[in-house]
Amino acid sequence: MSLLGAIEAGGTKFVVAVADTENPEEVIQRESFPTEDGEKTLKNVIAFFDQFEDIDAIGIAAFGPIDVKPDSATYGYVLDTPKRGWSGFDFLGTMKAWRDIPYFWTTDVNGAGWAEYVSGAAKDVENVVYLTVGTGVGAGIIQNGELLAGRSHPEAGHIMMQRHPDDHYEGLCPFHGNNCLEGLTAGPAVEGRWGVSGKDLPDDHEAWKMEAFYLAQAAVTYTAILRPDMIIFGGGIPHREILFPLIRESFAEQMNNYLDVPDLDTYIQPVKNGDNAGILGCFYLAKTLVK
Amino acid sequence: MSLLGAIEAGGTKFVVAVADTENPEEVIQRESFPTEDGEKTLKNVIAFFDQFEDIDAIGIAAFGPIDVKPDSATYGYVLDTPKRGWSGFDFLGTMKAWRDIPYFWTTDVNGAGWAEYVSGAAKDVENVVYLTVGTGVGAGIIQNGELLAGRSHPEAGHIMMQRHPDDHYEGLCPFHGNNCLEGLTAGPAVEGRWGVSGKDLPDDHEAWKMEAFYLAQAAVTYTAILRPDMIIFGGGIPHREILFPLIRESFAEQMNNYLDVPDLDTYIQPVKNGDNAGILGCFYLAKTLVK
Repeated sequence: MSLLGAIEAGGTKFVVAVADTENPEEVIQRESFPTEDGEKTLKNVIAFFDQFEDIDAIGIAAFGPIDVKPDSATYGYVLDTPKRGWSGFDFLGTMKAWRDIPYFWTTDVNGAGWAEYVSGAAKDVENVVYLTVGTGVGAGIIQNGELLAGRSHPEAGHIMMQRHPDDHYEGLCPFHGNNCLEGLTAGPAVEGRWGVSGKDLPDDHEAWKMEAFYLAQAAVTYTAILRPDMIIFGGGIPHREILFPLIRESFAEQMNNYLDVPDLDTYIQPVKNGDNAGILGCFYLAKTLVK
Repeated sequence: MSLLGAIEAGGTKFVVAVADTENPEEVIQRESFPTEDGEKTLKNVIAFFDQFEDIDAIGIAAFGPIDVKPDSATYGYVLDTPKRGWSGFDFLGTMKAWRDIPYFWTTDVNGAGWAEYVSGAAKDVENVVYLTVGTGVGAGIIQNGELLAGRSHPEAGHIMMQRHPDDHYEGLCPFHGNNCLEGLTAGPAVEGRWGVSGKDLPDDHEAWKMEAFYLAQAAVTYTAILRPDMIIFGGGIPHREILFPLIRESFAEQMNNYLDVPDLDTYIQPVKNGDNAGILGCFYLAKTLVK
């Protein structure tokens, strides 16, 4: 049987897996381990894949920033990051030195977004913004069926924001304080603002209206620039279901009928693939490389 | 000689022109007339082109909103607009009924942005945001050498904005008041805020610092989402040269070294093609249709 490989390279843990190339939804074997430095972690990755002879291609969805420009001298590298033992690490080169097969190299959010595009909430459309709101905020953007990138991958969690009039929180983005989306809406920002973790705030707490205001505002800005068919929210914070009606309501208010969008129940949706999205995205991306 | 045609369809005036297909920079004949309703205006357009037998293709850069999705039932139409006699007008169909040649149909800002991409400030790069700041604010976005569009063309003048702490102006966007870029920075907003037209404000007026703050903020947001190689400002307001050092300075402050961008003198630039950009873009777009 020929196989696809997946590497979901997160900042705190790595998940590696293989699936049947003909049936990427069925995971054959899967393993996960904590993220150490680049060298040690990739040793574990390689030890896992060494068990399998016949791997057609591997999809890698990595925490960023990473170099995704094929013509760059540091293509496949992890770029400057506070994570010890990763800045300037040649992730893709290390894998290629182990086995020279096709690799799809992209960001973790692109991986999860791609899974939604192929088999999740966005499977019937071509233009998607996938936003993950957890420890940080990041976006995978698919435009006309392709992952969007310019000089590098999007960092759309750092768009500038209008603050809610009742919000006096100083924000936590080390670069943008309370000026950017991540600084205002990531999990630690919710906890920083209200003094308790998001998961301990009741559904009727004003925290969720404020969170919805910001996420809706970001959705308006993405809509104006990209004109997507759908905006999908994943990550820890959007596990809170009550957020979705609140985001849709605030989006309608802020957009104020300026641009035509699909019905908001369709336009603004939670991720469908849940915690599998990352690995699944890697398999689907790997499969695009198999003739 | 075989010719290219150009239709720069503005809200207040139309410009039509022809150029040698082999040399689109040299305009052979050009005419301009005020914008009336759709039917009357296109009669003038057609009367102009009727003079020329051998037109290979015509580029049309039209004021919006317009339907640019080829698979849509109203592709080529002008959509809902307050402009009398244009809502639901079949612009492209009218031209095709006159002469069935290839037409490139896009927005006015896409036309001007494309001209910058082919022969202007952005001629050596592949990812460009072209922002026009005049009566309104609009953007043409080129991503990997193609005009970006999702469900429709961008309306990136309507991204949500953080207001300057000293700005108490109520804004003028009929949809978003002082919440969006256009509502805060378009020419009429400058006049509304300061009580005098932008062109009568001296270089050292605080208006320009405020304008630069907003334009830089928009540039940070475009950068985070699109990661362009260059952001170009055109339209009436950016004729004020003093704006550019101010925008670059504010961009550096707001971005705070978060994302790697080219040297700011390269990254943030005025339009090079000036008032010719619209017509030139039409010729270049038409030329992409000529085998």
